[in-house]
Amino acid sequence: MLIDFTTEPSRYRHWRVAFAGPVATLTLDVDPAGGLFPGTELKLNSYDLGVDIELADAVTRLRFEHPEVRVVVLRSGKENVFCAGANIGTLAKASHAHKVNFCKFTNETRLAIEDASEHSGQRYLAAISGTAAGGGYELAAACDWIMLIDDRRSAVSLPEVPLLGVLPGTGGLTRLTDKRRVRRDRADMFCATEEGARGRRAVEWGLVDELVPPSAWEERVAARAQALADTSDRPHDRPGLTLPPLDRTLTEGGITYRYVRVGFDQSGRRADITILAPTGDTSEQGVGFWPLVMARALDDAILHLRSNEPQLGTVVFRSEGDPAMVLAADALMVDHADDWFIREVRLLLKRVFKRIDVTSRSLFTLIEPGSCFTGSLAELVFAADRAFMFAGSRSGVNHEPAELSLSPLNFGAYLMGNGLTRLATRFWGAENSLVEARKRIGEPLTAEEAEELGLVTAAYDEVDWDEEVRLMLEERASFSPDALSGLEANLRFAGPETMETKIFGRLTAWQNWIFQRPGVAGDEGALKRYGSGLRAKFDPDRV
Amino acid sequence: MLIDFTTEPSRYRHWRVAFAGPVATLTLDVDPAGGLFPGTELKLNSYDLGVDIELADAVTRLRFEHPEVRVVVLRSGKENVFCAGANIGTLAKASHAHKVNFCKFTNETRLAIEDASEHSGQRYLAAISGTAAGGGYELAAACDWIMLIDDRRSAVSLPEVPLLGVLPGTGGLTRLTDKRRVRRDRADMFCATEEGARGRRAVEWGLVDELVPPSAWEERVAARAQALADTSDRPHDRPGLTLPPLDRTLTEGGITYRYVRVGFDQSGRRADITILAPTGDTSEQGVGFWPLVMARALDDAILHLRSNEPQLGTVVFRSEGDPAMVLAADALMVDHADDWFIREVRLLLKRVFKRIDVTSRSLFTLIEPGSCFTGSLAELVFAADRAFMFAGSRSGVNHEPAELSLSPLNFGAYLMGNGLTRLATRFWGAENSLVEARKRIGEPLTAEEAEELGLVTAAYDEVDWDEEVRLMLEERASFSPDALSGLEANLRFAGPETMETKIFGRLTAWQNWIFQRPGVAGDEGALKRYGSGLRAKFDPDRV
Repeated sequence: MLIDFTTEPSRYRHWRVAFAGPVATLTLDVDPAGGLFPGTELKLNSYDLGVDIELADAVTRLRFEHPEVRVVVLRSGKENVFCAGANIGTLAKASHAHKVNFCKFTNETRLAIEDASEHSGQRYLAAISGTAAGGGYELAAACDWIMLIDDRRSAVSLPEVPLLGVLPGTGGLTRLTDKRRVRRDRADMFCATEEGARGRRAVEWGLVDELVPPSAWEERVAARAQALADTSDRPHDRPGLTLPPLDRTLTEGGITYRYVRVGFDQSGRRADITILAPTGDTSEQGVGFWPLVMARALDDAILHLRSNEPQLGTVVFRSEGDPAMVLAADALMVDHADDWFIREVRLLLKRVFKRIDVTSRSLFTLIEPGSCFTGSLAELVFAADRAFMFAGSRSGVNHEPAELSLSPLNFGAYLMGNGLTRLATRFWGAENSLVEARKRIGEPLTAEEAEELGLVTAAYDEVDWDEEVRLMLEERASFSPDALSGLEANLRFAGPETMETKIFGRLTAWQNWIFQRPGVAGDEGALKRYGSGLRAKFDPDRV
Repeated sequence: MLIDFTTEPSRYRHWRVAFAGPVATLTLDVDPAGGLFPGTELKLNSYDLGVDIELADAVTRLRFEHPEVRVVVLRSGKENVFCAGANIGTLAKASHAHKVNFCKFTNETRLAIEDASEHSGQRYLAAISGTAAGGGYELAAACDWIMLIDDRRSAVSLPEVPLLGVLPGTGGLTRLTDKRRVRRDRADMFCATEEGARGRRAVEWGLVDELVPPSAWEERVAARAQALADTSDRPHDRPGLTLPPLDRTLTEGGITYRYVRVGFDQSGRRADITILAPTGDTSEQGVGFWPLVMARALDDAILHLRSNEPQLGTVVFRSEGDPAMVLAADALMVDHADDWFIREVRLLLKRVFKRIDVTSRSLFTLIEPGSCFTGSLAELVFAADRAFMFAGSRSGVNHEPAELSLSPLNFGAYLMGNGLTRLATRFWGAENSLVEARKRIGEPLTAEEAEELGLVTAAYDEVDWDEEVRLMLEERASFSPDALSGLEANLRFAGPETMETKIFGRLTAWQNWIFQRPGVAGDEGALKRYGSGLRAKFDPDRV
């Protein structure tokens, strides 16, 4: 079964979007019969990956298509329940890899909500009427402000530990302590209480921001939405775009997009991703703007590989085209940084590169003659676990030697989850190397220069190139896929951690461990036995 | 089989310690027949938990027993091999829980080495002649300076990924990027190269600090040791102590130490740890100094529980005695903070509390009438997942109401691994609460005051106490032990991360996951098949 990450509002089955001036309302009304996997029923506004694919799409479209929207109100379309979190039946049937990819994607979506608020001036308000349980509360925790109706029934809860023996792993634990600053012992009590917290306690403990009597609910939600909208710097008078469907052709051998080409090599357990430079007028802003079209395609390609090609353990990035064209697009994104549309494109690129950082595939970038790893595209060099650069020319090929060049965008536009640029992370503790690299902005660098500056792992000339690349790819394919996932998840994040990296590192790594433990994954484990009336059988040992 | 964490130099089978003025030499010379588990052979200076228990003992004794030692040189007693890392045969046979506890303890030992250097002026020098592979190189990476002999054979390596499908999980990956600042792509290549790096490359990549020709080896090691010794502030003229054997009685029902009492409740899956206040003269410094004796006992109790009582999933801390006596000890530790011995006692207490922070057991502290949670002991209140305080008196018991009080030591002496005090972590993002708490230093606080200040989770009077405690303990025992480990490992560490917490959080959590995966733990997994000539069978999917 192919998992498709593209959608559009007319195809939504689980969300409704409504607009009223600066306020958009995103209403979760899950179609129980609309589960991604046949035979699962999405009761009580519980979600599966399909529901979250729609949410991610809505969050992106709100940014690009609705410059006028300054606040997004998240609500439920059902009585008595805001959202019951991830659907347990689906999780119980899913493979370990699906569980992990599901959590990763939902985490990315919630971080995209926080990114919209922090960087695009599109605030999020969770208006909770009914119960917000597990992933439902975690979704609310990604918002700027949480309102809870004080009707003696509505509550927030993280019942994963008592109910299922798993963690609130979609950022829940980390946001409790690090974002909402809930005291750790209160967080512990909250996470041990199946029914959660409501009323005054929910506010006192910092679990929600505002408690509202039912009689004043609609009025207060509207007032709070307006107050949040007033903090936004989004433009009032600019038309939005309509993001067109991706120009995508999927075959057995790969995927072709307008500016991205993906080839699957099943026997080599590898995907080859080639980014194509723009060929026409890069000054065209709007839906045809090259960085936007390229970023959307690259994002889709990565998501496709994660879910649909689990055995392609290595991704090789290449590029083709005129570096000057890429540089022109970069220059435009530097010069118009304050324009709302350019800001969105830069932020989308940032998120796509971050998705690559947390993708469990070995990433190699090959900088060959005819390539265009310039500025924004050079992020794929620094995101890679290794990058090789071809020194000199290739016989019989009519290309100048490969060049690599930096733009100002490499020094601040595309921060990693750890809050640093990829170059700052690369040169963590070697400040001087960062200073030297910055001096070379705009200069086409040869393989020797790039190697000397520490921007690439190694430079090889024609004599060695093919053999070195082949050996590296064969060796990688022979290693334990699990060990590589762990290795890469550690080496890619030198230096500081942030709430975001704690979610992907600390919290997610623990959750992945728990997902493998007999008490969860086993036939007598909690996920399998959920709803059966039988108690799960846990390993009694503390590990 | 009982794992005993106590030892002393005369009982060492694997390490030799030699002294020459300010220089101590710790020589690893593993007895292949001296493995902790019968039937395992510790070839090539590979280590098991027993070897590391001796190392931890040596590191502690060097601090307390040898104030004159300013540098410790780590060497191998074998030809051609420095240390081959963790013994694979032992790991292959060990339970998942043993693997995890083994890694945790070895991590703590390496962090204790770094603590000795940073805070006690006892520097560590790794003098590598022969191969330092896996855990062998990780041990070197815990030192201040790594010297490698340039004999064309000696090398450093982290071959875990290619050889075993596991991670260099004893801090290896984190120290590469965060301490030694090895560039991530070089770290990736290094970790993929079974034979590792030697000679000039090892220096260029930052894997070692100094390359030395064989002819100059001894002379240069001595010179470097002297140079490191010169950076130390340890005293020249003070006599060391001799740490006596622990006064410990182990029965089926628990352990009794001089100032610590441990009761095992197998049916309740709980250990009760009671700390006893000093009764005599607290001004006695030396081996009888109460904080030292208490800390050593508490440390041993925690380690015993981890390895020997895996099913006791909850630890309840209590204390008994006169708070004034504890306060007097604290005052002495404040007033003589600069004294080398007091410094060591404070640092030992810090390490013991940190060991508690990373212990996978639910921690509850009960502050009852007759208790003495004052200053240093109050750290057990703040280390707990929850702390309950008894309000008022208990009928028929001749005690004043319980009190809790803070000392200056709660505000800086006992930093957690994240670099913050437990109170600062508790009040992360609530700076004002920290300020308010600080104002109350030295004041005996009632249950109501402690609750109001946020220092305890809840206060209950006689009417509710027994029932609330019983419910909490029963509920905890009913939860999934794995989920609780994950929950606690997240909630205990609000705010910033450091290299140390990254090792326990990010790196260890990934390693634990990998230890459970079929490619490692399965019958056809890498650990089982190591040395058999058969290739391990890995799950080909990337997760």
